[in-house]
Amino acid sequence: MRIALLGGTGAIGEGLALRFGAHTTHEIVVGSRDADRAIEAAVDYEEALSVHGSDTSIGAGVNIDAVSGADVAILGVPPYHVRETIETIRDGLEDEAILVTPAVGMSRSETGCHYDPPPIGSVSELVANVAPASVPVVGAYHSIPAGRLANLETAIDMDTPVVADDEAAKETVQNLTNEIPGLSPIDAGPLANAAGVESLAPLLVTLKHHNESLPELGIRFD
Amino acid sequence: MRIALLGGTGAIGEGLALRFGAHTTHEIVVGSRDADRAIEAAVDYEEALSVHGSDTSIGAGVNIDAVSGADVAILGVPPYHVRETIETIRDGLEDEAILVTPAVGMSRSETGCHYDPPPIGSVSELVANVAPASVPVVGAYHSIPAGRLANLETAIDMDTPVVADDEAAKETVQNLTNEIPGLSPIDAGPLANAAGVESLAPLLVTLKHHNESLPELGIRFD
Repeated sequence: MRIALLGGTGAIGEGLALRFGAHTTHEIVVGSRDADRAIEAAVDYEEALSVHGSDTSIGAGVNIDAVSGADVAILGVPPYHVRETIETIRDGLEDEAILVTPAVGMSRSETGCHYDPPPIGSVSELVANVAPASVPVVGAYHSIPAGRLANLETAIDMDTPVVADDEAAKETVQNLTNEIPGLSPIDAGPLANAAGVESLAPLLVTLKHHNESLPELGIRFD
Repeated sequence: MRIALLGGTGAIGEGLALRFGAHTTHEIVVGSRDADRAIEAAVDYEEALSVHGSDTSIGAGVNIDAVSGADVAILGVPPYHVRETIETIRDGLEDEAILVTPAVGMSRSETGCHYDPPPIGSVSELVANVAPASVPVVGAYHSIPAGRLANLETAIDMDTPVVADDEAAKETVQNLTNEIPGLSPIDAGPLANAAGVESLAPLLVTLKHHNESLPELGIRFD
């Protein structure tokens, strides 16, 4: 499978590139608005993988080139760049590509971090609204601590709720996620449930803010 | 310490009565709008504790009698009964009592369960708004699976975020919570952060709805 990490120079892109690179044989491509930055990130990721004993190579290109041939495109961009990024890649997306969105709208106050979704209700629903109608949208990876994901020396043990209206696309992403050791997908239903899932991310920031001695937090349901 | 479980005939009241009863020496009193129902519940809880090998006795009475002398009063009532319950007990609350609120506003749809807070932003803030100004309010126990809490044969291992503006009251509730084996409080900051904490509860219902083979879910941050 070819996985495009759009905005793949960012924290969640890095973490997913390294974990998919280290633990699977999928083809990984880093996309960015800037080709040089994508290439630079890909070189960095290959080096981190090499230190970890993996000779996986990572592709790189501008976002529209990264999605060419991709089975799964992960939109690792901030929520305010979601719309323009989708517009940029619209003509490059394969007919059967799946678009995955981990972005969350949040605002900070003195007391912590608060869920601040777009008017449509959630970033996941915004992505579905902007994406071509034929492209299934899956919300996932919202509450994964990106820094820990990107540290291959650290074992992880966390869950990530997954939302989608397209059951086959959801299953594909859940299966893909299961290939990363220590990361477990959990079905959270359709996109209409995305707000409840996305709102985990600001809560984790709030908890870390009030418990500085703790690591960047993930979540487990059990 | 004397702990009053208001609406203590309900699921979270039962769970907390049994766990505090089994694992601590605090005095537990079940409150209800109806004295007979409170007494009936207390007898049931004593029996469950006895089966578990504990001879703890549980007090009972109408809510205003239950709060008399209580150091901590836990408002285990649905969100739409919060206001009237506080009005009922207002004149009985001790000057230094702490009011704990585990209630969450949620609505169900075909797809799952959604956070549906009161206009003030959260049930915790509603409680603080309605309670006497001198009474510190602490939000806790929102995301604990009540059925599992009430089953003393089942070990638990879960976290509960705690919010409060009064640091001393928050610490008291966190210490009290730590006395229940397997239940860990985590500081989530002031009441202004309550919405993020309360919204865990409907997400857990949603996840259970879409994963029927799973037990009633709790949460761990790590």
